[in-house]
Amino acid sequence: MQQGYTLAELAAELGLELAEETDSSKRIYGVNTLEDAGPDELSFLANPKYAPQLDTTKAGAVIVEAKQAGRVKNALIAENPYLAFAKVLVLFSKPQGEFSGQSPLAYIHPDAELEADVTVYPFVFIGPRTVIKSGSCIFPGCYIGEDCRIESNCRIYPNAVLMSGTKLGKGTIIQPGAVLGSDGFGFVPGEAGIEKIPQIGSVTIGDNVEIGSNTTIDRAALGETIIGHSSKLDNLVQIGHNVHIGRFCLLAGQSGISGSTRLGDKVILAGQAGLSGHLKVGNRAVIGPQSGLTRNVKDGEVLGGSPSMPKNEFLRSSVLIPRLPELYSRIRKLEKALEALTVGKGNDSFS
Amino acid sequence: MQQGYTLAELAAELGLELAEETDSSKRIYGVNTLEDAGPDELSFLANPKYAPQLDTTKAGAVIVEAKQAGRVKNALIAENPYLAFAKVLVLFSKPQGEFSGQSPLAYIHPDAELEADVTVYPFVFIGPRTVIKSGSCIFPGCYIGEDCRIESNCRIYPNAVLMSGTKLGKGTIIQPGAVLGSDGFGFVPGEAGIEKIPQIGSVTIGDNVEIGSNTTIDRAALGETIIGHSSKLDNLVQIGHNVHIGRFCLLAGQSGISGSTRLGDKVILAGQAGLSGHLKVGNRAVIGPQSGLTRNVKDGEVLGGSPSMPKNEFLRSSVLIPRLPELYSRIRKLEKALEALTVGKGNDSFS
Amino acid sequence: MQQGYTLAELAAELGLELAEETDSSKRIYGVNTLEDAGPDELSFLANPKYAPQLDTTKAGAVIVEAKQAGRVKNALIAENPYLAFAKVLVLFSKPQGEFSGQSPLAYIHPDAELEADVTVYPFVFIGPRTVIKSGSCIFPGCYIGEDCRIESNCRIYPNAVLMSGTKLGKGTIIQPGAVLGSDGFGFVPGEAGIEKIPQIGSVTIGDNVEIGSNTTIDRAALGETIIGHSSKLDNLVQIGHNVHIGRFCLLAGQSGISGSTRLGDKVILAGQAGLSGHLKVGNRAVIGPQSGLTRNVKDGEVLGGSPSMPKNEFLRSSVLIPRLPELYSRIRKLEKALEALTVGKGNDSFS
Repeated sequence: MQQGYTLAELAAELGLELAEETDSSKRIYGVNTLEDAGPDELSFLANPKYAPQLDTTKAGAVIVEAKQAGRVKNALIAENPYLAFAKVLVLFSKPQGEFSGQSPLAYIHPDAELEADVTVYPFVFIGPRTVIKSGSCIFPGCYIGEDCRIESNCRIYPNAVLMSGTKLGKGTIIQPGAVLGSDGFGFVPGEAGIEKIPQIGSVTIGDNVEIGSNTTIDRAALGETIIGHSSKLDNLVQIGHNVHIGRFCLLAGQSGISGSTRLGDKVILAGQAGLSGHLKVGNRAVIGPQSGLTRNVKDGEVLGGSPSMPKNEFLRSSVLIPRLPELYSRIRKLEKALEALTVGKGNDSFS
Repeated sequence: MQQGYTLAELAAELGLELAEETDSSKRIYGVNTLEDAGPDELSFLANPKYAPQLDTTKAGAVIVEAKQAGRVKNALIAENPYLAFAKVLVLFSKPQGEFSGQSPLAYIHPDAELEADVTVYPFVFIGPRTVIKSGSCIFPGCYIGEDCRIESNCRIYPNAVLMSGTKLGKGTIIQPGAVLGSDGFGFVPGEAGIEKIPQIGSVTIGDNVEIGSNTTIDRAALGETIIGHSSKLDNLVQIGHNVHIGRFCLLAGQSGISGSTRLGDKVILAGQAGLSGHLKVGNRAVIGPQSGLTRNVKDGEVLGGSPSMPKNEFLRSSVLIPRLPELYSRIRKLEKALEALTVGKGNDSFS
Repeated sequence: MQQGYTLAELAAELGLELAEETDSSKRIYGVNTLEDAGPDELSFLANPKYAPQLDTTKAGAVIVEAKQAGRVKNALIAENPYLAFAKVLVLFSKPQGEFSGQSPLAYIHPDAELEADVTVYPFVFIGPRTVIKSGSCIFPGCYIGEDCRIESNCRIYPNAVLMSGTKLGKGTIIQPGAVLGSDGFGFVPGEAGIEKIPQIGSVTIGDNVEIGSNTTIDRAALGETIIGHSSKLDNLVQIGHNVHIGRFCLLAGQSGISGSTRLGDKVILAGQAGLSGHLKVGNRAVIGPQSGLTRNVKDGEVLGGSPSMPKNEFLRSSVLIPRLPELYSRIRKLEKALEALTVGKGNDSFS
């Protein structure tokens, strides 16, 4: 990457067309926004509202749709500039960390089984009978308890915690400080006031999942808490015990799911959404920001508000909430008018 | 546990009755749900809606009420199957971690006082003058600052942080990543814009408390932030400086309490509930999910909504919110009808 | 501090007046609330509702306004007792931790550049090319990735994580477990279902910023996520990628900001407030507790509710929500009355 890429190389790599008069030997060393890009950097135009920036950008080249190609000196033409740019980012991205090997400053239990090319940074603890497969990388301060299983090419960032028996599928990413497999919130009234129900289940995470920073996923009371393949959880998300999340779900920051709730595939939770326990949420359902879900949800339903209601109802009713004082005074006015009328009519009847 | 328990042993241990024709010598090696249990596992039926699963379960034995005893081959009879099962779980649960002793890879300040059977994992830091009593266990990556006091049989899971002066009662459990004793959010406008008010108080936690993963409890500005005996805090809960929480309280995930608010005993906060500062909440009060509390609460009050209102009012009013557009159009209709009437009446008066 | 301060010394240090008959040689060893202070401690009266405690306090001396000076034996007179007391707290506060030097139990990459008086506790990881300036202190379990830059006099508390390229201004404080520079939540639908957009930007924090415990700040997709000078973030706050926060902002616990939203200076977010992405929030705006912001905000606007509305509207409308059932029944009553009237009028027309 230090040598960058020529525009010709980038066009070939990404299957893009070079615009006329573009200097195909121009060398690109980085990527940036139209506003901030410099002459050695590549940028892109996806949102037409930023089109005026094409006239002022200092970017060395820009990925654009064909119709904008004439507006900049050097352009790569793409049908979908945003998607093309996402692929450029892969070329210019650099993985976190530069460590390799297994640090003598880590504690690896003799009964753990790590394949040869697993990276273990200093200050990592790995418990007995844990298996870590090829290409996975464990950053400093991580705790991997006993009987865990981490498939190939996982990245576990600093200070993440996997309690005993946690399983991660291939290529899964755990952002810093996430906690998997801590005890669920299970208590019963007992002789001594509140007694803890032992949480003897575990957490199982599919392939290509991403878990955000400081997100917490509780182990099941019994059985498994499950996050399905390719689902992505943002930061500070809370997943209660025995929750099952399907595949390709997206859970935004600070959303939370109470115990035993089940999500289908491709479900979206917006930021700070909260789901009660023991619910079923169908495939492709969408729960809006700060929405509070208290009922089951069918496939494809889109909900908002707290308690949740269909999004259309939410939009139509929420604009009326600020008008409640007005509605209230109109009702009073009606009541007075009606009273006057009734009195008037009463008088009439005397005539 | 590797040898399991016979049903006779389990019945004796838990004070349960064996159903007729049950094989008392049958050996049980684990516990699971009716759906997932295998022939070596014990399950239970607490919720009648799962009763049909009695006909299909592969469980080796099931804990049931007397009236269901005939439906499975091997049954243990309990008045309260759920409570009985919770006790079975204790028999089959296995504590996290297998380390013992005090690791030479930990940093224990020479002026710290640890009783002989305290467990200290690698990569633990323990500051000066901190006292840790018998049977407590400190997992990897924990930071225990100076002048802390940890009573007997506490378990402090990986990467938890106790800043200086934090006190834990007996048998308290700190889940991974929890932070106790960080600075409260105290600032005053000053010459330099915003000045930090030093937070010189501390955090004191009672006996048998449990603090969830990545939960944060701020030290007092002055005096103490207090969590009372046997209270249980779920994951990602925020407790502001100088908050006092009584005994036997339950705070669900992502709930938050602002500075100086006081909770009585047996208070329940549902998930994502938020309490303003300087409030008083009486014993046995319940604050519903996502509810926003802005006023004091009497003993036993049950609230919901944001801002909080009595739960009954909340339930009755929240079903009307989606109907606001309908209410609005009905008011308009009334206004038009009344106008027509008035006009009509006006005409009448000309006749 | 072990020798304490005489009242004369404190008065001189803080520019306060000694009340008549106050023993200027009286020695003070600590500070506390009126309720809890002992005879060697100093307290203060700021809020008049606590004035009755002046008659019962055991405090050795009290900071009061002039008019209250006669009510206690020893008094220091201040125009603003709260501000004066905040300054006293600085005198009596003791910094966290007692370690100095650079621990041999830390991992400091040979290509990192640390000035001589930087403190590095055990179990700290510092990556290559990272620069840490004079007076900064890194507590146990912190991860400072490659290419970071930490200016002078920063304090980074235990188990905080700074991923590659993170920059901290002078005197900035990172509370325990905070994560800066983790990947933003960026995904696009692709051939393989959901593809990760590499997050190649970074996080830049100004001078005198404070970041709360377990708060998460994502790196930019491109460019920088920015927290301006002297802004203060409470615990468990979520900051999405490419967010820009101005100077002197205060973000309370569990608030969250979605990607690319921009805050001006002196903005306040109350607890659990949530902001959608790509918004602009003007200077001195205030977003209330649990408020959900979905639109741009002008300078000085004060908002509440979810979705957000002007605070006045929110206050006036939210008191009417519990009265919706009443409004509903009044509308029904009106409808019936009107129907009766109309029928009546119909009858009239026959007469």
